[in-house]
Amino acid sequence: MIYLDHAAATPVSKKVLEAMRPYFSDEFFNPGAAYLPAKKVAHDYEDAKNIIARAIGTKGNDLIITAGATEANNLALSGVLSEPVFLGPLRAARPSLRPFEKRVSATPSRVLYLVTEHESIRRVAEKFNGTAVKVLPNGLVDMVDLKAKITDETELVSISLANNELGVIQPLAEIGALIREIKMDRLKRGIKRQLLLHSDASQALNLLDINVSRLGVDLMTLNAAKVYGPKGVGALYVSRDAKLKPLTVGGGQENGLRSGTENVPGVIGFSKAISEAKEHLNGNRKKYSELKKIFLAKLEDYELINKKHTLDNFVVLCYNGLDAERLVFLLEEKEIYVATGAACAASKGVRSHVLEAIGLSDSEINGSLRITFGEMNTKEQILEATKIINEVVANEKERMKNG
Amino acid sequence: MIYLDHAAATPVSKKVLEAMRPYFSDEFFNPGAAYLPAKKVAHDYEDAKNIIARAIGTKGNDLIITAGATEANNLALSGVLSEPVFLGPLRAARPSLRPFEKRVSATPSRVLYLVTEHESIRRVAEKFNGTAVKVLPNGLVDMVDLKAKITDETELVSISLANNELGVIQPLAEIGALIREIKMDRLKRGIKRQLLLHSDASQALNLLDINVSRLGVDLMTLNAAKVYGPKGVGALYVSRDAKLKPLTVGGGQENGLRSGTENVPGVIGFSKAISEAKEHLNGNRKKYSELKKIFLAKLEDYELINKKHTLDNFVVLCYNGLDAERLVFLLEEKEIYVATGAACAASKGVRSHVLEAIGLSDSEINGSLRITFGEMNTKEQILEATKIINEVVANEKERMKNG
Repeated sequence: MIYLDHAAATPVSKKVLEAMRPYFSDEFFNPGAAYLPAKKVAHDYEDAKNIIARAIGTKGNDLIITAGATEANNLALSGVLSEPVFLGPLRAARPSLRPFEKRVSATPSRVLYLVTEHESIRRVAEKFNGTAVKVLPNGLVDMVDLKAKITDETELVSISLANNELGVIQPLAEIGALIREIKMDRLKRGIKRQLLLHSDASQALNLLDINVSRLGVDLMTLNAAKVYGPKGVGALYVSRDAKLKPLTVGGGQENGLRSGTENVPGVIGFSKAISEAKEHLNGNRKKYSELKKIFLAKLEDYELINKKHTLDNFVVLCYNGLDAERLVFLLEEKEIYVATGAACAASKGVRSHVLEAIGLSDSEINGSLRITFGEMNTKEQILEATKIINEVVANEKERMKNG
Repeated sequence: MIYLDHAAATPVSKKVLEAMRPYFSDEFFNPGAAYLPAKKVAHDYEDAKNIIARAIGTKGNDLIITAGATEANNLALSGVLSEPVFLGPLRAARPSLRPFEKRVSATPSRVLYLVTEHESIRRVAEKFNGTAVKVLPNGLVDMVDLKAKITDETELVSISLANNELGVIQPLAEIGALIREIKMDRLKRGIKRQLLLHSDASQALNLLDINVSRLGVDLMTLNAAKVYGPKGVGALYVSRDAKLKPLTVGGGQENGLRSGTENVPGVIGFSKAISEAKEHLNGNRKKYSELKKIFLAKLEDYELINKKHTLDNFVVLCYNGLDAERLVFLLEEKEIYVATGAACAASKGVRSHVLEAIGLSDSEINGSLRITFGEMNTKEQILEATKIINEVVANEKERMKNG
């Protein structure tokens, strides 16, 4: 088996499972209980949150643990947009002295999101009448479009750190600086309305050195299942500036922002996974760069879609004229597991909005494969994979020609 | 260690952990992926859902997997009350021919909930202007109050199968029959408004033989963590009559009602836990009844709060005049772990609304202990526990007397 779909799922590493194990059995207590063994579990839970938080340059108390990235993304958007606290009156605004003087749009849009964002962001943003920001053909945010679309009504901008279909890394520090500049301008003009930057970092957590302050984000989504941690665990970083309403209420866990008995083993596993990721960050990046280089050198007759600014383990290929779903099926027979370029969309029988957004034609989209390397991959595997992919593709081209 | 707080948390059983293990490592694939090993995982996941569903007399497709009971409770209430589909016009109603002729109240309340429900129900119900239904001094629903409070505007009634502080088992089949009768009456009068019955069965899953049709519930909350399954996994049963809006949107998993990559190991573990619970149901009930009998026979100078209609493993005691929090602390020193009667409330420094609702005085509430037996408890442990509790209580009484 050669597994090349690490953007879809990663196995839980042995070390992670070992770290989790005691919390399933001996340390099973409810962290909310009053007796000492339960308090010890609560303490370990907080420690684990601190470890996760430190990996992005913050503290455990700024994290809300969720059941995954989807819930964290939903919480970020719904939580901010359902919260009326910071909605200062627009009419009180003084005239702008700066280049951010913006019209009040006909249909006010409180949230902007990159057109290539995941469904868990797009669908919430749409509920709140959100506006999509364009990307350039290379998948990077169109900064001109972003600047043009931020109005005095904008409260939240959501742009993922790295896209889940392309692996394209967005210039978040640059976006963060722009947001800060606009905030300063609003302050000067007496506009109290908040402006927050949210970023889904699910795909990037073990491949980029992330620091929330350096990036200038107010909210950030993390996901254990993409970094060799358990499924069903994620987190939302929330800066002290951001005020949220919870999605789920009840016992008041996670500072009242996400009720429910704490998933202690899950969070312990997440903390171990993120520690491992942090420790091996440079080694992994180097390894994946080399694998990618070999992979692309040996592969024949393809077009590379994500040429620049991408995660080191991400390759999106296009075999124009071929059917990627058929390629996935043919490769599966050889025990090589890859995704179509439009993996998420394909499983629901719809066109990939990401590949469409970067200007690919229908036939290019249909011929796209997403290949994502991971810890279990070796140079030998990659060489074997290219050999088989080349064969399968050549056969398919032959078949198409004769068919 | 003698652990007597199984209502707060249960350890993951060895068999459950063994069942989960392969899905952390070898079978880690994303169930949404296109290749065969992922499809196998998706198949196992559906199988597990079917096992969970069968334990309550339904099918896997009627379950929405959640991150626990809190999310399931939130989803049940928010999901129904945010969904406008079944809101037929009240004005079109024909006069009632039946005893359920109800006034339209001044402040229409779409949701009724038992006053003793968990915070994850109360807090959502309050958001929707819900009305609390009274309980009798024995903790059972006040059927007269319930009947009186169901109006033509009522869309949802939420009454837990067994209360988490008292273990009192509600007459759900009787309530279900009442709801059905009212539904029939509404139908006859041309009122299209839905009327659904939700029940949180978290505490009862391994102690009662549950069948959703027999009970007449439309929505039911399940929780893995209370039945020796993993934390962070629950489910909401949703009958075909009930239409919900999701709390989290995105990839469209769980029939579009709860997006996010499936927590495969968690659900596999839940299915194993519920199978075990089902298998040992009668044996466990018998065992707990015997333990309870011994426990109450050997214990001295107490008042039993939950005398009748309670789960077999649930004992709520009152030592009027003593401080239960101090008792928990003193027992902890002897490695006996129990909860105060107001465990959930106590951790947040508020008074227990449950004990208040059944008419206990402040000093009775302050002196209440909740003791819940579980699989690891033996007759010897119970004898040892009563001995130590009697000693600790006697010392405390002495201390109080001397001032």
